Amino acid sequence: MLGGTSLPALSLPAVCFVWQIAMIILFGVFIRYDEESDAHWVEFKREHNITSDIENDFYFRYPSFQDVHVMIFVGFGFLMTFLKRYSFGGVGFNFLIAAFGLQWALLMQGWFHSLDPATGKIYIGVESLINADFCCAGSLIAYGALLGKVSPVQLMVVTLFGVTLFAVEEYIILTLLHCRDAGGSMVIHAFGGYYGLAISWVLYRPNLHQSKRLNGSVYHSDVFAMIGTLFLWMFWPSFNSAITDHGDGQHRAAINTYLALASSVLTTVAISSMSQKTGKLDMVHIQNATLAGGVAMGTAAEFMITPYGSLIVGFCTGIISTFGYLYITPFLEKYLKLQDTCGVHNLHALPGMLGGFIGAIVAAAATESVYSAEGLINVFDFEGSFANRGVGTQGGFQAAGTCVAIAFGLVGGAIVGLILRIPIWGDPADDNCYDDEVYWEVRVPEDEESIPPVLEYNNHMIHKHQDM
Amino acid sequence: MLGGTSLPALSLPAVCFVWQIAMIILFGVFIRYDEESDAHWVEFKREHNITSDIENDFYFRYPSFQDVHVMIFVGFGFLMTFLKRYSFGGVGFNFLIAAFGLQWALLMQGWFHSLDPATGKIYIGVESLINADFCCAGSLIAYGALLGKVSPVQLMVVTLFGVTLFAVEEYIILTLLHCRDAGGSMVIHAFGGYYGLAISWVLYRPNLHQSKRLNGSVYHSDVFAMIGTLFLWMFWPSFNSAITDHGDGQHRAAINTYLALASSVLTTVAISSMSQKTGKLDMVHIQNATLAGGVAMGTAAEFMITPYGSLIVGFCTGIISTFGYLYITPFLEKYLKLQDTCGVHNLHALPGMLGGFIGAIVAAAATESVYSAEGLINVFDFEGSFANRGVGTQGGFQAAGTCVAIAFGLVGGAIVGLILRIPIWGDPADDNCYDDEVYWEVRVPEDEESIPPVLEYNNHMIHKHQDM
Amino acid sequence: MLGGTSLPALSLPAVCFVWQIAMIILFGVFIRYDEESDAHWVEFKREHNITSDIENDFYFRYPSFQDVHVMIFVGFGFLMTFLKRYSFGGVGFNFLIAAFGLQWALLMQGWFHSLDPATGKIYIGVESLINADFCCAGSLIAYGALLGKVSPVQLMVVTLFGVTLFAVEEYIILTLLHCRDAGGSMVIHAFGGYYGLAISWVLYRPNLHQSKRLNGSVYHSDVFAMIGTLFLWMFWPSFNSAITDHGDGQHRAAINTYLALASSVLTTVAISSMSQKTGKLDMVHIQNATLAGGVAMGTAAEFMITPYGSLIVGFCTGIISTFGYLYITPFLEKYLKLQDTCGVHNLHALPGMLGGFIGAIVAAAATESVYSAEGLINVFDFEGSFANRGVGTQGGFQAAGTCVAIAFGLVGGAIVGLILRIPIWGDPADDNCYDDEVYWEVRVPEDEESIPPVLEYNNHMIHKHQDM
Repeated sequence: MLGGTSLPALSLPAVCFVWQIAMIILFGVFIRYDEESDAHWVEFKREHNITSDIENDFYFRYPSFQDVHVMIFVGFGFLMTFLKRYSFGGVGFNFLIAAFGLQWALLMQGWFHSLDPATGKIYIGVESLINADFCCAGSLIAYGALLGKVSPVQLMVVTLFGVTLFAVEEYIILTLLHCRDAGGSMVIHAFGGYYGLAISWVLYRPNLHQSKRLNGSVYHSDVFAMIGTLFLWMFWPSFNSAITDHGDGQHRAAINTYLALASSVLTTVAISSMSQKTGKLDMVHIQNATLAGGVAMGTAAEFMITPYGSLIVGFCTGIISTFGYLYITPFLEKYLKLQDTCGVHNLHALPGMLGGFIGAIVAAAATESVYSAEGLINVFDFEGSFANRGVGTQGGFQAAGTCVAIAFGLVGGAIVGLILRIPIWGDPADDNCYDDEVYWEVRVPEDEESIPPVLEYNNHMIHKHQDM
Repeated sequence: MLGGTSLPALSLPAVCFVWQIAMIILFGVFIRYDEESDAHWVEFKREHNITSDIENDFYFRYPSFQDVHVMIFVGFGFLMTFLKRYSFGGVGFNFLIAAFGLQWALLMQGWFHSLDPATGKIYIGVESLINADFCCAGSLIAYGALLGKVSPVQLMVVTLFGVTLFAVEEYIILTLLHCRDAGGSMVIHAFGGYYGLAISWVLYRPNLHQSKRLNGSVYHSDVFAMIGTLFLWMFWPSFNSAITDHGDGQHRAAINTYLALASSVLTTVAISSMSQKTGKLDMVHIQNATLAGGVAMGTAAEFMITPYGSLIVGFCTGIISTFGYLYITPFLEKYLKLQDTCGVHNLHALPGMLGGFIGAIVAAAATESVYSAEGLINVFDFEGSFANRGVGTQGGFQAAGTCVAIAFGLVGGAIVGLILRIPIWGDPADDNCYDDEVYWEVRVPEDEESIPPVLEYNNHMIHKHQDM
Repeated sequence: MLGGTSLPALSLPAVCFVWQIAMIILFGVFIRYDEESDAHWVEFKREHNITSDIENDFYFRYPSFQDVHVMIFVGFGFLMTFLKRYSFGGVGFNFLIAAFGLQWALLMQGWFHSLDPATGKIYIGVESLINADFCCAGSLIAYGALLGKVSPVQLMVVTLFGVTLFAVEEYIILTLLHCRDAGGSMVIHAFGGYYGLAISWVLYRPNLHQSKRLNGSVYHSDVFAMIGTLFLWMFWPSFNSAITDHGDGQHRAAINTYLALASSVLTTVAISSMSQKTGKLDMVHIQNATLAGGVAMGTAAEFMITPYGSLIVGFCTGIISTFGYLYITPFLEKYLKLQDTCGVHNLHALPGMLGGFIGAIVAAAATESVYSAEGLINVFDFEGSFANRGVGTQGGFQAAGTCVAIAFGLVGGAIVGLILRIPIWGDPADDNCYDDEVYWEVRVPEDEESIPPVLEYNNHMIHKHQDM
C-alpha cells in the first residue's frame, strides 16, 4: 500500500516514543513554573505589593489562550477536513503534530527568549502556552501545503524543524531586530506559509494526477471545513491580541482584527461570485480567503491603524487572497511545479508578507500626537537600548523582519524538503494520496456512505439501463 | 436557473463592493477608538486614578463578547444547516450578512447612542462590538424565516434595513422609554422575529410546494444543526449578561439564563414526545424549542427574578415554543399564507414578546427589600431625569417597549418585503428553493453522497429488476 | 418496536414534567442568589472594602465555567455521536440528562456543602454552576457505558441516582476526608466510570449481537465525534482549574493539564499504530485515549507535580488507556459479561483511579521548600481542624478517597442497575439497540444517504448484473 519507500519505513510509534521521552527528559532538566504559577505566588504577591489575585497574568490572558487553543486544534484541524476521504488525516494529524510541537516549542522558545542565566531554567506561565501554540501554527500552516501527500512521520519531522526554525527567526526578528509582531504576520504566517511551500516544491510529484479522484470535497466535508473556518474567523481577534500589552494593547488589537475580518468576507464573496459566469460562489474561497484579513493584521493590529485602516486592510487582502485561489495557485502548480493542497500561499504566505509590510508602514507613520508620548514608547517598546529608535527606523526594521521570516521559510523549507526525500518515511504512493485508508482503519464495507468507485460504477450501470 | 426576475439581476459583487467601500468612507469620517482602546489609555488611567489595567472594560466583557460572537456565526449559522441541500447557504449567507451587518451596526448604533456632539465622532470599544453583534442578530433571525427562498442580494437588503430599523427601535426603547433589555427579548428577538415574518408574509410563494423535496433534513444535516443549537444554548448566559452592569449584574444574568435554559430542555422533550403516538422525539423541536428559555429571559435575566422564577420561565416557554412548532407554524402557513422555514415565530418572535412582558412584570414587582435601595437604582438605572420613576411606571414602559419592538418588526418587515418584490434581486424560482446549487458551486458528480434524484431513480431501477 | 417491557412503559413526558415541577418547587424553597450575584452586592462591596467589581468571583471563574459547559454539552455530546445510527441519541439524550442533572446537582450539592443553617437556604454563584456541571459529568460518563442500550427514561433514572450518589461521595471525600480533588479524578471520573460499568454489568444483554450491524461508525460520524474529542481535549485545562484557588492555583492546574494532554496524544498514536500489523491508526483510540492525561491529572493538577511530572502522567495514561481499548474492553465483555459501548473503563474509570493514586503520591511527597510554608497550607487547605495534618497523612486520605469513590460507583451502580431491570422503562429490544429510530423521528425515505440494507442490496444487484 505504501509507496516511494525503498528502505524500510521508519515507524511512527518509534518516533512518537523516542521524541516524547526526550521531551520528558528535557522538561525535567529545564522547565519550571514561573512566579505566577508557582505555589510561592502568595509570597511573591506580598513582596511585590500585589493586592489581588486578579493581577495574576492568568486572568489577563487565559480567555485569549483558550481561543487560540481552539484555533490551533479545531480551527486548523477542521479547515483541513474538506477533502472527501482525508478528513481523518486532516484533523487527526493536525492533532498529533500540534501536541508534539507545543512541547518542543516550550523548550525552543524558552532557550531563546526566557532562559534564566542564573539558574539555567525556563520558567513558564500562561503567556508561554500561548507562544507555544503560536509556534506550532507555523508548522500547521506548512501542513496545509502538504495535506494528503506526506506520512505522519514526515509531518513530525516537518514540525521538529519547523518549531526549531521558528524559534530562531523569532529571536532574530523580535529580539535582535526589535520588531513588533504580536499576531505573527511575519513570524507565523509568512514564515509558515513559505516553509510549507518550499517543502512542497522539493517534494513535487509529477504523477499526482493519479490521485485526482480524491483531491476534492463532498457536500458534508465542505460543511465540516466551515467549522474550522468559523472558529478561526471568530477567534482571530484573540489570536492577534493574546500577547499584546495589557489594557489598551489587547483591546485595540481585538477591535482592529474584528474589523479587518469583516471586511475580508465581503470582498471574498464579491470576487468569488465575479469569477464564475454563473455568479455562483465557491466554497474554497469562503473557507479560506475570508480569513486573510486576520493574517494581514497580525503585525499592525496593536498599532493605531485606525478602524477604517483595518477595514481597508481586510478589503484588499480579501481580494488578493481570492485572486490567489483563482489564478496564482493554478499558475504555481503549472509553471513552478508547486502543489499546494490548501492554498496556503493565498491564505498565509502572501497575506502574511503583506501584513509585515503593512506593519512597517503603520509603524513608520506613527506620531506622538496619535499615540501620546508614553503610548508610543509602550506600543513600540522603545526602552533600554532602543530608547532612541525613531519610528522611521522602526518601520525599516519591521520590513527587514518580514524578509527574514520569508528567507527562513524558503531556505529552511528547501532543506527540510530534501531531508524528507530520503526514502525512509513511508510516504504514500502517487495513486494513494489524499486517502485516509493508507494510514487509518476506515470502516467502509457496512458504510451507508459507500465508497466512490462503487457508486460511480453504479451510475454507469444506470446509464446502461437507460440505453436499453 | 434563477427565476422571478424580469429585470436584469442586481449583482452580488456590485452590492458587496459598493457597500464595503461605503463602510470604509463612513468609518473614516466617524469611527475612532474609545479611551480604553486608544494608546492614550496610559494617560487616561493616570488622570482617572485607575490603578490597574485589569480595570479596562476589555477584561470585564471580552470573554462574553467572544461567546456572543460564536453564537452569531457558529450558533445561528449551523442552526440553519439542517436542510439537506442548503447547508452552504445556511452557514455561508449567515456569515456574509453578519460580517456586513456588524459594520453597519457600529455606525447606526454609534449615531443613535454614542455620537460625541463635540467632535462628531463615534468612539468604540469592546461593548460596541457586542452591541454590533446583537444588532446583527435581529437580521439573522429574520433570515431564519426566509431560509432557502431568497437570494444573497436580498439578504443584504434585509440586513441593511434590519440594522437600521434595529438602531431606531433600540433608541426609542432603551433611551426614550428608558427600558432595560440587556439580553434583547424585545429589541432583538421580538423585533427580529416579527421583522422576518412580515417579510416572509409579503414574499409568500403559492407554489413553494414545488421545492418540497428539498425542504427537509437528512441524518447528518440534523447533526450539523445540533452544533448550532448547542453553542447557542451553552453561550446564552453570556449573551444575556454581556452588557449588563459589572459585578452582580453580569453574575445574576448568567445564572438566571442558565437555569431557564435547563428547564426549557425538559419541557421541550416532554411535549415533543407527547405529540407523537409513538412517543418519538422530533429533532426540529430539540434543535429549536430548547432555546426558548434563553430568549424569554432576555429582559428579566438581570433582574432579581429568583432562581425558581427562571425555572418557571423556561418551563413555560419550552412548552409554548414546542406547541408553536406543532400547531402554530402549520396554522400560519395554511391560513395566513406565512412560510417560516426555521419557525422563527416559535423560537424568537413569540418567546421574545413573552420575555418583554415577563420583564415588565418582574420590573413592576421590584422592591427595595429585595434589591436594596442602591441595587434598585443600579439595576433600573433610576438616575438623572429618571430618578423619580417608580417600579410600576417602569413596568408599564417595559410593556410599551415590547409593543414598539413588535410594531417596528411588522411594519418595517412589510415595507422591506415590498422592496424585495421588485424583480431585480435574483431570487430563486419556486422549484429551486432550498437548493444550494442556485448560488453555490456544488461538486456532485464524483460525490459519494450522490444527489437525491439519482438515488431515487436508482432505487426505481432496483425495483424494476426485482419485478423482472 | 420497543422490547423488554412486560408492564406498560413509564412515559418520558410524565417523568420530565414531574421532575421539572419538583425542581421548581425545591428551588423555590431552597435556592437563592449568593452575595456576589445578588443586587445587594453594592452594599456588600462597601462593607467588605472591595474596591472593584472585578473582584467579583464571576471574573475569576466565568471563562472557565463556559469552557466546562462546552465540555459537558458539546464535548460529551459529540464524543457519543460516533455510532452510525445513534448520533441523535448520543448528543440529544446527553443534552436532556445534563439539563436535568445540573438542576438536581445544585440542590444536592447545596444541601451537602453550602446549606446555611441560619436561613435554611442554599446560596448559589458561578462556582455552584461549575460544580453542578461537574456533578452531571459523573452521570454522562455512565451514559457512555450504556450508549444505545437504554431508554431516555432509564437515563433520567441513572442521572437522578448518579447525582445523588455523587453529592454523598463528594461530601465524604472532600469534606469528611478533607481530600483535594479539584478536577475530579476521584469524585467525577473514577466514580462515574465504575457507576456506569456496574449498571451495564447488571443490564448485560446476552443477545446484543443482534444489533451488531449498528454498533460501529461511518466515516462522517467519526468526524463528528472528533468535535467532541477536541473540545474536551482543548478545554480540559479549564476543567481541572475551574474551581482551584485563585491565582497560582488556577494558573498551575491549567499548565499541568495542558502538558499531560499533549503527552497522551503521542503515546496514544504510538500504541494505536503498533497494535495493527499495517501500522494504521484507529479512530476509536484517537477519539478517546488522547484524553486520558486530562482525567489522570484531575487530582494532581493543582499540586506542584512539576511540568515534567505532568508529561510523565500523560505518557503513561495514554499507553494504558489505548491498551484498555485493545485488550481490556474485549476481555471484560467476553469474561465478565460487561458491555461498555464507549469504553468508559479505559477513558474514565481506570485513568480516574490512577489519577486518585497519583494525587495521593504527589500530596505525600509535598515539602515546604517546594510549596513554601504558606503555599503548602493554601494548596492542601491545612486550616481549622486540619491545621496539623501532615502531608503523609494527607496522601493516605487521598488514597482512601479514591477507594471511596470506586466503592460508591460499584455499589451504587449495581443497585441502580437492578432498579433499571424492572420492566417499566421502555428499553430497546436486543435487535434495536444503537438505533435512533426507536426514540427519534428519523427522516430516511427521501434521504440521500439511504439506509444500509438498501445500498447493500443495491450492490448485490450490481454484482448480479456483472454476472449476467
